Amino acid sequence: MEQSRIIEIKEDILSSNTNAADAFRATLAQEGTFYTDIMASPGADKTTLLLALLPYLRKQGEVGIIEADLASTVDSQKIKEAGVDAVQLETHGICHVDMNMVEKSWAAFGGKHYDFLFLENIGNLVCPAEFDTGAHRRVMLLSVPEGYDKVYKYPPMFSVVDALIVTKTDYLPLNPDFDMAALHKQARVLNPNLRIFETCARTGEGVEELAAWLCECRTTSVV
Amino acid sequence: MEQSRIIEIKEDILSSNTNAADAFRATLAQEGTFYTDIMASPGADKTTLLLALLPYLRKQGEVGIIEADLASTVDSQKIKEAGVDAVQLETHGICHVDMNMVEKSWAAFGGKHYDFLFLENIGNLVCPAEFDTGAHRRVMLLSVPEGYDKVYKYPPMFSVVDALIVTKTDYLPLNPDFDMAALHKQARVLNPNLRIFETCARTGEGVEELAAWLCECRTTSVV
Repeated sequence: MEQSRIIEIKEDILSSNTNAADAFRATLAQEGTFYTDIMASPGADKTTLLLALLPYLRKQGEVGIIEADLASTVDSQKIKEAGVDAVQLETHGICHVDMNMVEKSWAAFGGKHYDFLFLENIGNLVCPAEFDTGAHRRVMLLSVPEGYDKVYKYPPMFSVVDALIVTKTDYLPLNPDFDMAALHKQARVLNPNLRIFETCARTGEGVEELAAWLCECRTTSVV
Repeated sequence: MEQSRIIEIKEDILSSNTNAADAFRATLAQEGTFYTDIMASPGADKTTLLLALLPYLRKQGEVGIIEADLASTVDSQKIKEAGVDAVQLETHGICHVDMNMVEKSWAAFGGKHYDFLFLENIGNLVCPAEFDTGAHRRVMLLSVPEGYDKVYKYPPMFSVVDALIVTKTDYLPLNPDFDMAALHKQARVLNPNLRIFETCARTGEGVEELAAWLCECRTTSVV
């Protein structure tokens, strides 16, 4: 009985979350703000990749970043030190970000216009996949040291994203078993339209290409 | 209203899960089975560290391993190839392991005696912290490439475990910013009794010491 009560409540929540997400997505498109949700395991280089993208994106417009964590303000401080507006969203232990949190975070920017909005989601390759955060694109990072064999273990995340961004390619020499071709193949079996980027925030590999893709997506997403 | 219904149901579930966990822990202690729950992010070397521990532990007794994943049998196959009994627990997308799953997995071993039982939990540094899986010890892995600044971001996990096992220390030369002393200090502020091990499954660093600690814990945990 408990199980069915949970499923019922969960469906209610997900459905009302999706409605709010659709409305938010449309409003941001009207306002000219292109919004990307970045998901990954802890330590996959989400913040570092964002910092590497900033010089390219800031040539195109204003950038704002929502930094979500269970607790702490470590990441939003790093972003602010780079001269970019950031709002720290602390979920107080909650494993994902929902629309209620997104709306409160967005309001905390105080009505300023942004051409690019990013949500750095909770470091979690499981739960965030279920919650639409109202973004125009959802992307996931997978770092080379995590290993390439993650598609079969975390299928929901690989299924819902528009792009897979492999990070920390400078670790490849230390990971001779990392089978990049197999990763591409397995990910595209699950998600045939997936864009795949191979990047390294430290060396800059692939970062300009990723920035160009985001700019291209922006032109088709906002009014 | 939804929020309060969820909290109420969640409290019911966690409380009934804890009762089942206490009973399971006591039964295994009576049967001479020392049981450890291993938690970590995806790709933190859970399976690889287990494989490195096996030669030490098998000198002391029989080992059985429950491999939990959202989907796939990749990890249990690796364990079986090493000649050790493994049960694959597929949670079908659920982000944590609860006692119902543990009991079913344990039954799947068919009543054979094990001196050491391990649960390799879902790759998730958030949700598994909340669910007691009936283990005598809970440990977490943190791999060097994830970065040392995780204590403030994932406080529930660092709070509930008996040991923090730093893995992939062979990556330290590539991570000059990894502040091991700060990690020890921050983790012990949150969890003063925490045991900390620095290990590398690839080179064997710290693995024998960790195996010795597990054997020592076994003598004080089982009847």
